[in-house]
Amino acid sequence: MPVTIDDIRAARTRLAGHARRTPLLSSCFLDEIAGRRVWVKSECLQHTGSFKFRGAWSALTALPEGVRGVIACSSGNHAQGVALAARMRGLEAVIVMPRDAPAIKIANTRTLGADVVLYDRVCEDRDAIAARLAVERGLMLIPPFDHPQVIAGQGTTGLEIAEDARALGLGPAQVLVCCGGGGLSAGIALALEAEAPKMQVRTVEPEGFDDVAQSLREGAVVTNPARAGLCDAIVTPAPGQLTWPILKRLCGPGLVVSDTDTLRAMAQAFARLKLVLEPGGAVALAAALFQPDQIAGDDVIVIASGGNVDSTVFQRALQTGDRDATG
Amino acid sequence: MPVTIDDIRAARTRLAGHARRTPLLSSCFLDEIAGRRVWVKSECLQHTGSFKFRGAWSALTALPEGVRGVIACSSGNHAQGVALAARMRGLEAVIVMPRDAPAIKIANTRTLGADVVLYDRVCEDRDAIAARLAVERGLMLIPPFDHPQVIAGQGTTGLEIAEDARALGLGPAQVLVCCGGGGLSAGIALALEAEAPKMQVRTVEPEGFDDVAQSLREGAVVTNPARAGLCDAIVTPAPGQLTWPILKRLCGPGLVVSDTDTLRAMAQAFARLKLVLEPGGAVALAAALFQPDQIAGDDVIVIASGGNVDSTVFQRALQTGDRDATG
Repeated sequence: MPVTIDDIRAARTRLAGHARRTPLLSSCFLDEIAGRRVWVKSECLQHTGSFKFRGAWSALTALPEGVRGVIACSSGNHAQGVALAARMRGLEAVIVMPRDAPAIKIANTRTLGADVVLYDRVCEDRDAIAARLAVERGLMLIPPFDHPQVIAGQGTTGLEIAEDARALGLGPAQVLVCCGGGGLSAGIALALEAEAPKMQVRTVEPEGFDDVAQSLREGAVVTNPARAGLCDAIVTPAPGQLTWPILKRLCGPGLVVSDTDTLRAMAQAFARLKLVLEPGGAVALAAALFQPDQIAGDDVIVIASGGNVDSTVFQRALQTGDRDATG
Repeated sequence: MPVTIDDIRAARTRLAGHARRTPLLSSCFLDEIAGRRVWVKSECLQHTGSFKFRGAWSALTALPEGVRGVIACSSGNHAQGVALAARMRGLEAVIVMPRDAPAIKIANTRTLGADVVLYDRVCEDRDAIAARLAVERGLMLIPPFDHPQVIAGQGTTGLEIAEDARALGLGPAQVLVCCGGGGLSAGIALALEAEAPKMQVRTVEPEGFDDVAQSLREGAVVTNPARAGLCDAIVTPAPGQLTWPILKRLCGPGLVVSDTDTLRAMAQAFARLKLVLEPGGAVALAAALFQPDQIAGDDVIVIASGGNVDSTVFQRALQTGDRDATG
């Protein structure tokens, strides 16, 4: 059954008082780089440091009666979102995570009370592991993006954007969304279709992981090889069965950014917004700042989707920014 | 004429739609370290990266008719606040800054359109320089803290805290405020006296710059020698003539934190809140996390007052945090 705006509105009601309504930030310094006004929806300030808490809370508050626990596969952000939502709901949580996920994400997921099961990203099939554990332990699987209630939860971000844009008097604007499997992009696109139909979602991916941009260009799903990358949160190999038809119908051409521009965008968020972004949460800002010719309009809205980054990677971003500043 | 709650309420009206209403953030990870719930008023997300924009906007919207420009002395945060407020109001701005202020603060102040005049913190008198320039160029002096409209502007932070605490159902709580000359502390204390009288402001200063803590202990103003320090934003030598009577009347004993704990607090804000704090903006969080025995109550509210930090200092904080994590 396809996700509808009613699902997103219902999710918003369930999220009220539990998820944070994150601020839409801006800086004249960023506007100057981008050549237009840049509005940053700061989902790194969401509980557990990424938008994923929205989808997790949405899914866990829509479970059938009698479910005693949940299981999820995730490089880390969905993991933390599900772990916290499960703890808040008094449910058991098992998380299947790649062995090469950032240490902080694995540690946080454990501290949030989840049972973490590690797997090898290249030679093991996380979905098979999760399916087996779900049966063995009687747990409900919460997929990271291809699930109606997860998409509906992420879509609440779009409702807030539409509301804030109205209050600010913004006209038609492109909304740049960091894109892995497409749950956030699809949810926001559906919300904006209903609430701000002059806005258009543009997916943003890292170079080498541009399955959605390629799929949008081809009109059919194209797959990346599964491997690790700087933007660990969004290196998904392909859009989902539920997300792809929504992306295909509603999104403009996909944007693709280099790792260097992503690190530069992280340095700008540090200096100008005082926000900590992880690489996968900074690709949309990177596109807004460093690919202005690919974007239309006087305003651009950017999702800063997460901030769960190891300190070594963050320091690398700051050093990249310093090299920019000194020429 | 002493500052009153009416001045703060009037400032709030003038700030509406111009200053940001910053979020009160929290993290279960921080609660665990502190042994109580920690609420972080995130003024690093304010325009120009610190609460100083509030006081600057308050003062510049209350100028007498016919004033064509303003002048301010500041290590950087007041400078940027005044520069942006002046630009938004179409006024000329001259800023007298110490030569050893962080490079990013000097650069930002210039980019915001102000004329920056540098001086030597040890052997020159910034007040004399500013007074001379004010007369020569016909500018109105906007002091960094000892000015009724500046204190009133900073006090709007306290009105927002009282409102958010009510919505969250918080009981009596101590409110930890990063303290230099005491403008923010005094403003918040006045606002809470009227709006949340069970709350109490506690000033927080860096070791070696604890003039306010000493003054509160002695019951009379004690002065620090003027010199530079890690917490550049709050190394003021003494509380002000307007701020001191308010601090003396309303604040609990002053807290004092080490530079190492300040760096550790910056690392925690990075990891747990996804916020960039500067040293002077992190001392209150440092006290909440690392001096729990000095604080009373189930909840503590902390002002994260600014985030204008050079990347080298921030990297030092991250490395301090990493050393903590690895034991």
